[in-house]
Amino acid sequence: MNSKKIGQQTLALSQPIYIAAAANAVGQKESEGPLSPFFDYADADDTFSQKTWEKAESAMQEKALELAKEKAHVTSSDLDFLFAGDLLNQCIGSAYAARDAKRPFFGLYGACSTMGEGLALASMTLDGGFGRYAAVVASSHFCTAERQYRTPLEYGGQRTPTAQWTVTGAGAVILSKEPESCAITHVTIGSVVDQGIRDTNNMGAAMAPAAHETILSHLRDTGRSPDYYDLIVTGDLGYLGHELMIELFRQDGLSLEVNSTDCGILIFDAKRQDVHCGGSGCGCAASVLTGYLLDGLRAGQWHNILFCPTGALHSPTSAMQGESIPGICHAIALSSQPSY
Amino acid sequence: MNSKKIGQQTLALSQPIYIAAAANAVGQKESEGPLSPFFDYADADDTFSQKTWEKAESAMQEKALELAKEKAHVTSSDLDFLFAGDLLNQCIGSAYAARDAKRPFFGLYGACSTMGEGLALASMTLDGGFGRYAAVVASSHFCTAERQYRTPLEYGGQRTPTAQWTVTGAGAVILSKEPESCAITHVTIGSVVDQGIRDTNNMGAAMAPAAHETILSHLRDTGRSPDYYDLIVTGDLGYLGHELMIELFRQDGLSLEVNSTDCGILIFDAKRQDVHCGGSGCGCAASVLTGYLLDGLRAGQWHNILFCPTGALHSPTSAMQGESIPGICHAIALSSQPSY
Repeated sequence: MNSKKIGQQTLALSQPIYIAAAANAVGQKESEGPLSPFFDYADADDTFSQKTWEKAESAMQEKALELAKEKAHVTSSDLDFLFAGDLLNQCIGSAYAARDAKRPFFGLYGACSTMGEGLALASMTLDGGFGRYAAVVASSHFCTAERQYRTPLEYGGQRTPTAQWTVTGAGAVILSKEPESCAITHVTIGSVVDQGIRDTNNMGAAMAPAAHETILSHLRDTGRSPDYYDLIVTGDLGYLGHELMIELFRQDGLSLEVNSTDCGILIFDAKRQDVHCGGSGCGCAASVLTGYLLDGLRAGQWHNILFCPTGALHSPTSAMQGESIPGICHAIALSSQPSY
Repeated sequence: MNSKKIGQQTLALSQPIYIAAAANAVGQKESEGPLSPFFDYADADDTFSQKTWEKAESAMQEKALELAKEKAHVTSSDLDFLFAGDLLNQCIGSAYAARDAKRPFFGLYGACSTMGEGLALASMTLDGGFGRYAAVVASSHFCTAERQYRTPLEYGGQRTPTAQWTVTGAGAVILSKEPESCAITHVTIGSVVDQGIRDTNNMGAAMAPAAHETILSHLRDTGRSPDYYDLIVTGDLGYLGHELMIELFRQDGLSLEVNSTDCGILIFDAKRQDVHCGGSGCGCAASVLTGYLLDGLRAGQWHNILFCPTGALHSPTSAMQGESIPGICHAIALSSQPSY
């Protein structure tokens, strides 16, 4: 078999790997934002009827996957693989959610790039001939992330202007080789990029160089110009990070101003909802993809989307030890007109 | 392409995926144990010349990968993919180690099963035609794990008889399609199994049911009997967990007494080194595989090994919330005589 690798970092799938279905479950604040019509389930108080926030996050993942299975008309036993990840220490959001599924399970840690990492591995796995259906789930919860990464929820401190708001949301995608309206055609796997940013309240700046590098590699590897895509959507760079990325491309002589945006910008009305630089968390890219983006792709609003979730691979411990924040970004080429 | 999936959970690679090279780096205690001759590098004081234990763990991962690349006669730029994971919150051991490698990176969280998860995904990726070389790295460090999971290092509390000792070690494997003396032929992907064990000082008991389920699935899926393998080696069940697993197989009418062992049993002299039930941690299976097991496979001591790293997918938070401990196990069939 010839290599499907093209250029430095991009893999061209030998066949389109289709989105059999996608679904999401989000919290109250997300359901009050501009993408409200694109969420399948919104919990009234973010507890998902659980006694702890961590259990709520697992329940939210289970809910998203359950809804995706319903839409795809498959049962758990049809799923050959489950790829999942979240931001919690030891990824317990995913592990406990996967307990009842009883499917071959791959736990991922890609921080907020997890949906991209999962879609890449799952589409490669199906293209490699290892199964028929693969599910990918990623989540974040404001209340679990805030108390793990920052301060107790009760603390109520002021947030800096560059801070972002962790999305309470889970997205689930079921991939298949059976023709559907949208497909993954290429994936570009990012490397760890660290430009020395140390401010943990400015994650957009820390992740922008990784987004720039992965998207630039994707364009070089495929020979495509930015305007090949109707939309280039990063994960959770937020307003500032997105602006920085645009500037990095400007220095390359490439304009991403017209056709690029960011899930962290899309998911909240930043001023009305008081989220400063926008949304963040694995659940940000995951819930925007599984609603707004895929719905628009199916409806013909766009034909080609480059979905580029970004992650900051640090921890409170690394920050306390004076380390800078490494970023990563994976790019997934989605098309409603895959040509092979 | 026909599915390479056989039975419920096993994937039969369409070609052997070879071990181009493997290497490890360990701490002082490990180098004083029975597997001493099989380690490539042992650090005298476990700091790996770093100022914090977390940075030491990253340096140890880098060292293991560097040595594996040397043995395989490849440079970083030859590696199409890097799969890595560890036990630290947000997997910082791997993320910071990967920073200089600048290779397409997949972060994994499989707790102590990580080397198995990584070998499975990496071999599937190469078999799928996505590249020529893939590296897999996994690590644990006694000093990072102890203070994250249990008590401050200075605390010096008594350990219960069922406790295990986290291995300070990293293992790196470089896979390739170029024929070498040992290869991966099958992988069995485990699901999350939870039998309700809640004692975080008895991880062997929590993981034994997962090891039993995955190995049983592997035998069913491949139609092999346990004695097909010269050695069935679990990851870090330790003395008690291994005994429990043997008992579970006995109830199935299968005997694993003669040809099975556990990396957590092999790596330390439990009595002399005062490690109670044996070794544990991602670095346990990773450093035993990359030394003792692969050396023996190459030397003809064994011809077929089923390598089955086990992981406990809990966290201190889940334990404090009264949750039981879910386990997982992936099985990797290694052969010095792959027949295709």
